[in-house]
Amino acid sequence: MEPVPERILTYAKETLAQLVAIPSVSAEGRGLEAAAQLVAEQLEALGLEAALHPTPGAPVVYATRTVPGAPTILFYNHYDVQPADPLELWETDPFTLTERDGALYGRGAVDDKGELAARIAALVWLKERYGELPFGVKFVVEGEEEVGSPHLARYVEENQARLAADACLWEAGGVDAAGRPLAYTGLKGIVALELVVRTAKFDLHSSYGAVVENPIHRLSRALASLRDADGRVLIEGFYDEVRPLTPEEEAALERIPDESPALAELFGVPAFLGGVSGTAFYRKLLAEPCVNINGFTSGYAGPGSKTVLPAEARAKLDFRLVPDQDPKRVVTLLKRHFERHGFTDVEVRVLEVGEKPARSDLTHPWVQATRAALAEVYGTEPVLYPNMPGSGPMHPFAHGLGVPVVGIGCGYPGSRVHSPNEHLRLADLERGIQAIARALERFALE
Amino acid sequence: MEPVPERILTYAKETLAQLVAIPSVSAEGRGLEAAAQLVAEQLEALGLEAALHPTPGAPVVYATRTVPGAPTILFYNHYDVQPADPLELWETDPFTLTERDGALYGRGAVDDKGELAARIAALVWLKERYGELPFGVKFVVEGEEEVGSPHLARYVEENQARLAADACLWEAGGVDAAGRPLAYTGLKGIVALELVVRTAKFDLHSSYGAVVENPIHRLSRALASLRDADGRVLIEGFYDEVRPLTPEEEAALERIPDESPALAELFGVPAFLGGVSGTAFYRKLLAEPCVNINGFTSGYAGPGSKTVLPAEARAKLDFRLVPDQDPKRVVTLLKRHFERHGFTDVEVRVLEVGEKPARSDLTHPWVQATRAALAEVYGTEPVLYPNMPGSGPMHPFAHGLGVPVVGIGCGYPGSRVHSPNEHLRLADLERGIQAIARALERFALE
Repeated sequence: MEPVPERILTYAKETLAQLVAIPSVSAEGRGLEAAAQLVAEQLEALGLEAALHPTPGAPVVYATRTVPGAPTILFYNHYDVQPADPLELWETDPFTLTERDGALYGRGAVDDKGELAARIAALVWLKERYGELPFGVKFVVEGEEEVGSPHLARYVEENQARLAADACLWEAGGVDAAGRPLAYTGLKGIVALELVVRTAKFDLHSSYGAVVENPIHRLSRALASLRDADGRVLIEGFYDEVRPLTPEEEAALERIPDESPALAELFGVPAFLGGVSGTAFYRKLLAEPCVNINGFTSGYAGPGSKTVLPAEARAKLDFRLVPDQDPKRVVTLLKRHFERHGFTDVEVRVLEVGEKPARSDLTHPWVQATRAALAEVYGTEPVLYPNMPGSGPMHPFAHGLGVPVVGIGCGYPGSRVHSPNEHLRLADLERGIQAIARALERFALE
Repeated sequence: MEPVPERILTYAKETLAQLVAIPSVSAEGRGLEAAAQLVAEQLEALGLEAALHPTPGAPVVYATRTVPGAPTILFYNHYDVQPADPLELWETDPFTLTERDGALYGRGAVDDKGELAARIAALVWLKERYGELPFGVKFVVEGEEEVGSPHLARYVEENQARLAADACLWEAGGVDAAGRPLAYTGLKGIVALELVVRTAKFDLHSSYGAVVENPIHRLSRALASLRDADGRVLIEGFYDEVRPLTPEEEAALERIPDESPALAELFGVPAFLGGVSGTAFYRKLLAEPCVNINGFTSGYAGPGSKTVLPAEARAKLDFRLVPDQDPKRVVTLLKRHFERHGFTDVEVRVLEVGEKPARSDLTHPWVQATRAALAEVYGTEPVLYPNMPGSGPMHPFAHGLGVPVVGIGCGYPGSRVHSPNEHLRLADLERGIQAIARALERFALE
């Protein structure tokens, strides 16, 4: 396998450094327009025609260059990132890309600015090799992925003709803990909610806790009612829409090497929910829906004690869904659950409109091309996930446009995506660029 | 009832103004030595012998003057105050006593510098009337009440002989919302704890919530296990040490005018725990122990959603205890409860050493003298609380020294104790001085 030339790696790093320098935090609504503008310029430098398409939220960067008679690949990425807090846990400024110990540190260094930079670098490389890009390229780079892509599904629906393509390369990927390359053909769906319990007009002296309801107690009970000790969701009807796996998907699950002991070690957890490992671990992680609590906030959080009875408690949570569950239906079931179990004081606020789950056909040539490219670059058979445990707006592409979607990329399990000290290892970046370039060549030219 | 002479009111105001001018904030460790020195001087001006007794924290001001053959009254007060912040909500400087609309404003204007000034003024008045103080007086004025009196219990234990007295006047009191005078003969005990659950080495992407335990879920379950919907604590053995009320205590509870509808309206709560009102409300508030959760902190608390699986969750809580419960035993029972119910992952940290509950004998002549004095001054029968719902270091006095303890004073429900714009109404100050003087005369001289 031909190494990535130094100038291409430098191009990738500089592209990434420019992107990381803009704090495009969608949850805080900042830096989005500037980041979109930069992405458009970076894609124009590739020879694409780029435009900012407005949405009710952040603009979508759309860029294209078609080649008559050649297939077209659609790239989906995003220029927004998660908030950087807690800031004090970062060893270097999250918005200054910093190279240290063979890795590039910064918010978005992998997710998703690093992945976007790797794709741009791969295309620059192919352009050098062939004089021109030898196949059609379309980019959809949105700015609201980290807040649930509230406007992307409609954007894709309204631009179906414009976005027509033969295959879609998804935003991210990487290697597992053992360094094996990963490819995936689906994502879980998601719906993010906030639960609010308010019990009084204002905070009271804690001695009134003898007679006045405590909102933390109420919210704790409500949260405890949502799942059992093994993680199984206890909401009535929650599993009714879960579609069984196909034989190919089942076989793919069984072929996933068991990384669960290594993950347990890395994360520092004594055991996984339900004590699962091996295929049972992957079935639970990938093929089963779940509920997760992202945060709980109420009352005094400072040092020492403050004896106060808070008036309000809030929790944020997300449900991860599998085909054919529907986010809206899950919200309805959750509200019904609270009504049935006496939690009428728990207000349910939908934070994100939600994303439907998606899975592509494992037998499609685009899936085969990416698998073969990964095998060639990494010297080992890739691990194929029918879907990843995470979520994203894949449904409108895979099921709306009807193109097969595959994700490969530059991350690893220790990348600290969404956490302080997010980083991209330079070795992952190089092989990611190689794999993307080879997958495109194999699908479009061979 | 003889009015308080103008010169005595002026003496009280000047005494209070000197005290308020020193920002003796124990939580911030400032102004404590200076305030202690001032209190010693003010008590020496009364003809007492005063000294600063060191503790591992702030010094205790001890002052005494005994009268052979006459009973001795022990005064417990404190010279420290709560922090003044948020400063921007004060209408005048918190550390400059300011008279406005018939009230004196400043941090500590009531709690507890105002109460101390009223006691000093009452003694000055009695001294004028009798030429000399006609009974023995001892003062214990500590500087760490607002941070849980961590060193007072040991101080009292180590000075039992020195502190011997016939009765004890507690630090504070006042009138209820209807203007009826209050007296109380006890306080609840307290122990403040923090619970910590740690499930992983670091925060993870929330999609791992399918297989990795969520600390908020664990802590929610643990908290939900502590009490039922009516507020009854579910820890095995928790009520074993609760002493039944005496017939006098029971009768006192039944005589408390039912303020529960007005409190429900003020607090904005549709009903109290267990639907109590009237005597049942006061029994639950005063005579039953409880657990209250002061705060819960984990994961993302900002706007919108952040799909993260936190590694750690923390909750702060306090137990309010009644005779003869013991803070240390409650901690042991709590730990045993968690072990029995499979919550071995919940770490229990004691934040404050705790205070034991205290109640004095309602039939003691000192209790009767204060009741009669209040009835005489206010022209209405006082409301007698066997104990207040709050806590304080009364146990070493009531049960260590074995003296009956009664609290009466100068506050009202709108005094804004611990809040911005704390104030002492001049009418409350005058009647407080009268009531203290009359209670002392009745007990010691009549």
